[in-house]
Amino acid sequence: MTPASLAAVKASADFAALGRQMHALVAELYPICRSITGEGLRATLRRVAQDTGLTIREVPSGTHVLDWTVPREWNIRDAWVANARGERVIDFRKSNLHVVNYSVPVRTRMTLSELRPRLHALPDRPDWIPYRTSYYSEDWGFCLAHNELARLPEATYDVVIDSSFESGSLSYGELFLPGSSRDEVLLSCHCCHPSLANDNLSGVALLTTLAQLLAKASRRLSYRFLFVPGTIGSITWLAANDDTVSRVRHGLTAACVGDAGPLTYKKTRRGDAEIDRAAQHVLKASGQPHRVAEFSPYGYDERQYNSPGFKLPVGSLTRTPHGQYREYHTSADDVGFVRPESLAGSLSAYLSVLAVLEGNERYRNTHPKGEPQLGKRGLYRAIGGEPDPGQLQMAMLWVLNQSDGGPALLDIAERAGLPFEQVRVAADVLVAHGLLEPVPPYPAGTIESHRQ
Amino acid sequence: MTPASLAAVKASADFAALGRQMHALVAELYPICRSITGEGLRATLRRVAQDTGLTIREVPSGTHVLDWTVPREWNIRDAWVANARGERVIDFRKSNLHVVNYSVPVRTRMTLSELRPRLHALPDRPDWIPYRTSYYSEDWGFCLAHNELARLPEATYDVVIDSSFESGSLSYGELFLPGSSRDEVLLSCHCCHPSLANDNLSGVALLTTLAQLLAKASRRLSYRFLFVPGTIGSITWLAANDDTVSRVRHGLTAACVGDAGPLTYKKTRRGDAEIDRAAQHVLKASGQPHRVAEFSPYGYDERQYNSPGFKLPVGSLTRTPHGQYREYHTSADDVGFVRPESLAGSLSAYLSVLAVLEGNERYRNTHPKGEPQLGKRGLYRAIGGEPDPGQLQMAMLWVLNQSDGGPALLDIAERAGLPFEQVRVAADVLVAHGLLEPVPPYPAGTIESHRQ
Amino acid sequence: MTPASLAAVKASADFAALGRQMHALVAELYPICRSITGEGLRATLRRVAQDTGLTIREVPSGTHVLDWTVPREWNIRDAWVANARGERVIDFRKSNLHVVNYSVPVRTRMTLSELRPRLHALPDRPDWIPYRTSYYSEDWGFCLAHNELARLPEATYDVVIDSSFESGSLSYGELFLPGSSRDEVLLSCHCCHPSLANDNLSGVALLTTLAQLLAKASRRLSYRFLFVPGTIGSITWLAANDDTVSRVRHGLTAACVGDAGPLTYKKTRRGDAEIDRAAQHVLKASGQPHRVAEFSPYGYDERQYNSPGFKLPVGSLTRTPHGQYREYHTSADDVGFVRPESLAGSLSAYLSVLAVLEGNERYRNTHPKGEPQLGKRGLYRAIGGEPDPGQLQMAMLWVLNQSDGGPALLDIAERAGLPFEQVRVAADVLVAHGLLEPVPPYPAGTIESHRQ
Repeated sequence: MTPASLAAVKASADFAALGRQMHALVAELYPICRSITGEGLRATLRRVAQDTGLTIREVPSGTHVLDWTVPREWNIRDAWVANARGERVIDFRKSNLHVVNYSVPVRTRMTLSELRPRLHALPDRPDWIPYRTSYYSEDWGFCLAHNELARLPEATYDVVIDSSFESGSLSYGELFLPGSSRDEVLLSCHCCHPSLANDNLSGVALLTTLAQLLAKASRRLSYRFLFVPGTIGSITWLAANDDTVSRVRHGLTAACVGDAGPLTYKKTRRGDAEIDRAAQHVLKASGQPHRVAEFSPYGYDERQYNSPGFKLPVGSLTRTPHGQYREYHTSADDVGFVRPESLAGSLSAYLSVLAVLEGNERYRNTHPKGEPQLGKRGLYRAIGGEPDPGQLQMAMLWVLNQSDGGPALLDIAERAGLPFEQVRVAADVLVAHGLLEPVPPYPAGTIESHRQ
Repeated sequence: MTPASLAAVKASADFAALGRQMHALVAELYPICRSITGEGLRATLRRVAQDTGLTIREVPSGTHVLDWTVPREWNIRDAWVANARGERVIDFRKSNLHVVNYSVPVRTRMTLSELRPRLHALPDRPDWIPYRTSYYSEDWGFCLAHNELARLPEATYDVVIDSSFESGSLSYGELFLPGSSRDEVLLSCHCCHPSLANDNLSGVALLTTLAQLLAKASRRLSYRFLFVPGTIGSITWLAANDDTVSRVRHGLTAACVGDAGPLTYKKTRRGDAEIDRAAQHVLKASGQPHRVAEFSPYGYDERQYNSPGFKLPVGSLTRTPHGQYREYHTSADDVGFVRPESLAGSLSAYLSVLAVLEGNERYRNTHPKGEPQLGKRGLYRAIGGEPDPGQLQMAMLWVLNQSDGGPALLDIAERAGLPFEQVRVAADVLVAHGLLEPVPPYPAGTIESHRQ
Repeated sequence: MTPASLAAVKASADFAALGRQMHALVAELYPICRSITGEGLRATLRRVAQDTGLTIREVPSGTHVLDWTVPREWNIRDAWVANARGERVIDFRKSNLHVVNYSVPVRTRMTLSELRPRLHALPDRPDWIPYRTSYYSEDWGFCLAHNELARLPEATYDVVIDSSFESGSLSYGELFLPGSSRDEVLLSCHCCHPSLANDNLSGVALLTTLAQLLAKASRRLSYRFLFVPGTIGSITWLAANDDTVSRVRHGLTAACVGDAGPLTYKKTRRGDAEIDRAAQHVLKASGQPHRVAEFSPYGYDERQYNSPGFKLPVGSLTRTPHGQYREYHTSADDVGFVRPESLAGSLSAYLSVLAVLEGNERYRNTHPKGEPQLGKRGLYRAIGGEPDPGQLQMAMLWVLNQSDGGPALLDIAERAGLPFEQVRVAADVLVAHGLLEPVPPYPAGTIESHRQ
């Protein structure tokens, strides 16, 4: 059986069920204490591998990767602050956010005054535990709700962080789905955060399901999925994959795709890459509220992919962007903050964007002088004189008029003000009648688009 | 006597009289049953030839023209639907719109139920007869007012269409007015519609009068007028005129120029051709309400001229565009729907646009370093210090400042925010004083403009 | 001691004192009767030379300069219109505006009717004396308040203009402050107007003070100040300085910088030169009301610098532009019309614009693949997870991301939406840590910018 096109896979998908499936994966992964290295990260990758056939790669501590060095592997068993009666007033077992991620081992006794500089809380959101990290400096600390901190009596406390730093490895996951072209679409998410659901178990779940659907579809383009710890993970992959990098033609980082906010597309460094235009076309054609943000060198791993030594056209398709919702990087970003229907809507948008990339081919009109006579081919209504030719006939006329080997179908859809799918169908009909012939898409191996 | 410039011809024209003259021609041609071939079309062309010296060309049925074939010639003598008493309930002699144009011959008897699928009416405009065609499929039918249709009793009717299809020819008219340059302006109208006044006897009348005025004017550019049956006529001309096509630098299709609506300019496929800029400049400078529409591969013969194998920069200057007025393609598009003053205003706009094309030359300032001293040449007021230099002096300063061989006068007018005529006058003054010298307009024979 | 950067000079300037100093210079120069040649002009230049070390150049009458000729030198001692009782009803000693500037000598007796065509007044501003000139035509006249004119009885008057035209010279001032680059910034003001304070003693005073400040600063660019009579002065300089002209990379004409209106930047002929972008960035970043005007070939000496034979990128930074305030070219443009705080604010804007030009260098990220690890260099906060990285860190990320040898720091500031100073500081920090290396600014000696 020939695999279905991505558009067909999307058309037959049960998004309600897929939304529930993604939400269940978020809930399952939520309790794990992940970091940029260690067993929690590895366990998360193994779970994704069950569904997708992901390959887990291990890069030894100390490996030089671009300007960085893979850090020692961090693992943590327990951590607490206890009062004189041995009661834990801060307890890692209740939330792994209580410990500053990557804290060095500690076993000491301190007064509250001595401890206070190492306690992080949010006075403006007093019931929530903040998420803090100390990846690249030897440091430690605890995070707790402001109201809990306010209730702590001045006293002496036992302070324990039972963590370890050892020579080990950094883990990341990679999945490659080949297409008929070697041109690649890079789909990347960070999977290093501990118990934070939207940031970014939502992205992990979405790319897991997307990989499952793409595996079943016919593919013109090749797809590469990366599940990496933030920053150091993408840098590690970039450091070791020069050849692959040169084949990346489009990309997206997936994060914060499960909250109730509207979809937001953040552009690539170039701002006018094909992925930028495909994503904006899909969001606009959706008729739903959405936002488009300019590129900024802050955010997720698109920072690394868009660095000047790579300039990969990688955008980011999220719901509410990082830092713009109150629950961001707090204990309130929990499983309930993520909604099955939001995950499903995000997945649908990802599929639509990829369907545009798949279908955005270029053609040449084989009868470029005047219009070819559609009527004798059964492609035009028999009785003339009515004012409006109908959307499919308009799409055919646009495709014929524009297809001189220059504009691709997305260019034509945008100029015509028609949905991409309609233009894609018109092109299929015209190809079937010999009125269009394909032209090579773009110079092979170039990262920069053909547009000038 | 040296012929006057087009600007001067326009300035001395009596537009009220010209409006009445064009309206009279519309009224005279209105009763004729035209089609894309046949005697009605031929009679119309002969009438235009009386006024303009138009050449009528005949192309035999069966001739292959691009992807099309010239159809058999269609002629019609009479047609009716009559009841048992012999009374004509639908009668071609009352309106030639009653018969679907290009209907095959019919002589039969049918019940109303059998006939009904071949009867076309407009429930939302129940008093008007629609206009329908079946040019390229062997079909037939009748058109009538919805209210008339509703009154027809169930009964048996005699149905007669006394038409003929024979090997003959397709007729079209061509008029060439040479100018000092071989670069051509193409002015085209469709003249195949039967009794429809605005669409397009208005265009026929306008181009007839425009040709008369241009014949009397001095001409930098050459002008080619085409009076063609829609689609097949322009395709027939394009198929046989490769050399001429390469000299077309600007063009307009004229249609629907007699209704009361504001002028509308529809851009060329390129969108930034000189004709696009000239037409928009004229409409904007007019201070009148107007519209500018983007190119679309639907409409009149600009579809064919702008096809990717030709890419001729042909726009369309109309009043209310096709399909956007209720009377469009109905019996309500009659002689009364077209107004002399609307025809006159459209003619005036066409003349202004052509005057811009005629005058849009490029120059080089012969004293490019600093401003030349205008005062010693009598071109600057003697007493200085007043705040405002006046429009002509501003126009001279702009032309001197910009004329480095790059911008043409229309570029300068647009940058300066001055009317083209003022800039043209300033250039004439400066040329007369040796402060400007002409530069070659554009690379000869190129269709694409010099602008990038 | 190393001289301070221009940004540092600006930061330590006492603008209130500088405003008072400039206003005092306006008041001191106000009574002098200047013209485009003569002793008044020369005296003005000598006063500026006291403060700045300006060189005064003399160009003999009759010298051919481009399309112009240096006129004979004009000087005036006295002028009046007196009634039969010998009472001066118009008196040059009260205001030098009373005589049409460059009037030929006159000694005659006339009736008021005979005199009236030579009397200039402003009915709409009846208390003010207008300013009028007759530089390049042998003419003469008087200017007076409309109300004064209305009160003159019909009678016979003695009319005397005690002026002289002699072969002499045209004077102008030039000051060159070399920088480490030979690329020059041209700063030009007209200094030919008699008792008019805003137009243009304000510009004279501003450039005088600016030259004093620049002389104390370290300079990457070289600076050339011109104090010239309007039109003929800049033309005279342009005629004799072809080599220098080729090194002018940026420029501003200074005029009308002392009134209470908001700052106005008038663009260069190109419209997108570096000076255009620098001036607009500064005005926008100021948060103050301001205006940006398109180029026009009318105004001050930017007309000459931007002529097509030179195309120097010279804009104009003023407050209310010429001709747009009621006091313009009248006796109401007096010392009181100019405000110390307005002069100070204008000076501050000039310094900011020049600081952008000084600092707008281009760099290449030495670690372009991925982000360099800022943390190990002490350039990134130790504890992560907070939503906002702070403005300096954002500026560093932007500079690193964009610095591929293409964009200069102003490009980066505009794309990032950050003030230029912040981006400049970020670049300094990154250079100090070896993360940026400079790239050559632009091809030497080109006038056209590197931007395309």
